[in-house]
Amino acid sequence: MISLKDVKAARERISKYVHKTPILTSKTLDSISGNQAFLKCENFQKTGSFKFRGAMNFLLSMCPDERKKGVVTGSSGNHGQALACAGKLLEVDVTVVVPEDASPAKLAAIEGYGAKIEKFGRTSTERLSRAFEISKETGKVFVPAFDHPWIMVGQGTIGLEILEDLGHVDAILVPCGGCGLISGIAVAVKEQMKNVKIYGVEPEQSNSTYLSFKAGHIVELKDINTIADGLRTASPGRITFEVVKKYVDDVLLVSEEQIKAAMVFLLERMKILVEPSGAVTVAALLFHKILPRNKRVVAILSGGNVDLLSLCSWVKEVKQQQKEFW
Amino acid sequence: MISLKDVKAARERISKYVHKTPILTSKTLDSISGNQAFLKCENFQKTGSFKFRGAMNFLLSMCPDERKKGVVTGSSGNHGQALACAGKLLEVDVTVVVPEDASPAKLAAIEGYGAKIEKFGRTSTERLSRAFEISKETGKVFVPAFDHPWIMVGQGTIGLEILEDLGHVDAILVPCGGCGLISGIAVAVKEQMKNVKIYGVEPEQSNSTYLSFKAGHIVELKDINTIADGLRTASPGRITFEVVKKYVDDVLLVSEEQIKAAMVFLLERMKILVEPSGAVTVAALLFHKILPRNKRVVAILSGGNVDLLSLCSWVKEVKQQQKEFW
Repeated sequence: MISLKDVKAARERISKYVHKTPILTSKTLDSISGNQAFLKCENFQKTGSFKFRGAMNFLLSMCPDERKKGVVTGSSGNHGQALACAGKLLEVDVTVVVPEDASPAKLAAIEGYGAKIEKFGRTSTERLSRAFEISKETGKVFVPAFDHPWIMVGQGTIGLEILEDLGHVDAILVPCGGCGLISGIAVAVKEQMKNVKIYGVEPEQSNSTYLSFKAGHIVELKDINTIADGLRTASPGRITFEVVKKYVDDVLLVSEEQIKAAMVFLLERMKILVEPSGAVTVAALLFHKILPRNKRVVAILSGGNVDLLSLCSWVKEVKQQQKEFW
Repeated sequence: MISLKDVKAARERISKYVHKTPILTSKTLDSISGNQAFLKCENFQKTGSFKFRGAMNFLLSMCPDERKKGVVTGSSGNHGQALACAGKLLEVDVTVVVPEDASPAKLAAIEGYGAKIEKFGRTSTERLSRAFEISKETGKVFVPAFDHPWIMVGQGTIGLEILEDLGHVDAILVPCGGCGLISGIAVAVKEQMKNVKIYGVEPEQSNSTYLSFKAGHIVELKDINTIADGLRTASPGRITFEVVKKYVDDVLLVSEEQIKAAMVFLLERMKILVEPSGAVTVAALLFHKILPRNKRVVAILSGGNVDLLSLCSWVKEVKQQQKEFW
């Protein structure tokens, strides 16, 4: 299992390439949530999401000879973009298998970093099989999106930055999909301060980590239907779930309506754009999924890559409800 | 005329109340603009705009007896909100005269800080006359939005933070309306480093500072028609314009289309919400109003208070044009 030492080594490796992202606060959020909230802004990370940390650490951890062969991954979103950017910086040849219906904006972002794109199928299973195939045919190294120690410890560097900047905190809220992010952060934090609570946050409509956590073993989902596209994973990873079982204190669920309201709150009150997957943690705060009790609570805003026209349709929805959320 | 010493004194006075706002960078913006760009994020300032600095400094500079009588101002936007918040923190009674057609969101923000609201007329002249009247009737002190040394030096504290964080810079781009912001920053910066260029940026359709600067005397506008509501002033102030004449190097103009494109750029690429008045400086960078030549250029993002439904209509406009701006 990965350890604090591995996360620290990752930090040494990647620190000159990644942004140490700012932590923002808001009196309004404090007053609604009843806690002292700190927002770790990975939406300001290079490529617009935390995924850049893991991708960078993966490439830097490979032996140089392997790196020369290039890498391949399957992704429709942030991981593909992050790997493409990391590859550009380190001059590593990157191939990303994307779904046939990938949005032109996402393709443009990946291509903008000079990566090769191959369109294949529509499901993540199809994409991954094709990426494995390419790896076998060409010798390019397959880079998983979350279920790999190098990826996990890369994401875990966020935990080190939080403790460094804030000293004592009581709890950290982390979006859960494949659990690469939460497992890295949990190790980085719990192995320094075991009393800090680590909470996963998931959409009600994509709750595989919640179900797995409660069952004590991996539960795979068939029906996934959430606007949080970064959290549409059928289940946590095998490696990441071991860490979740050991270190995560609980998994909280938020509704689609709560996610949209949180995005609007972040935009209107805090002037920042956060994608649905990144806003789940703030939804948990705003809608009291943890008790209001004056604690120092960190919410990870994992990314900010969102199609602006989709954003506008959600803004209208929230505004038209004319609901007084808080 | 105000001096660097006054700005430094203002900083001592207000620093424990205001956020030292972060400075963000973007490789994409650098590559489009041909300069090394630094964005000073006053959209993250308390109340969502730089106006909080001047308002806070004004109240703290008053003698305590005067302060007890309360203050009054005329404003439809950021200044009213800033003064209301400053008043709440310092327990000063605040009255804000707002236009009869002020948006409910803005009223709610001002009332949320516990200030009294009086609706009067629609134009800024009507509002100001009514505020003067209230001041005469009640003894409450009138607080100007820009044309006062205490306001100017409060805004100037931004200049100190910039030099402190960045050391040498080549130029600073500042939105111009009444010129309270640019005059404060110009004094703070030019009196430390006289070679730093200070550029004002104005909407083409509200170009009173541009016209005044070129003419060498104040020119009043009759027709003002810009989405940049914070810059809809008929002319620069009498006191601020003296500083503009002495220290400002040039005034640049941007179109409405360029302002909208800059807002979309900031949202989509940098994940931050900036109001039209605050995005003019980034529009100047994106559309090469200063020559691309590898200089260290700071753009002030003066605020982030924007109605989200208006924002969405501008996003659609920019997206529907399908224009490749860069």
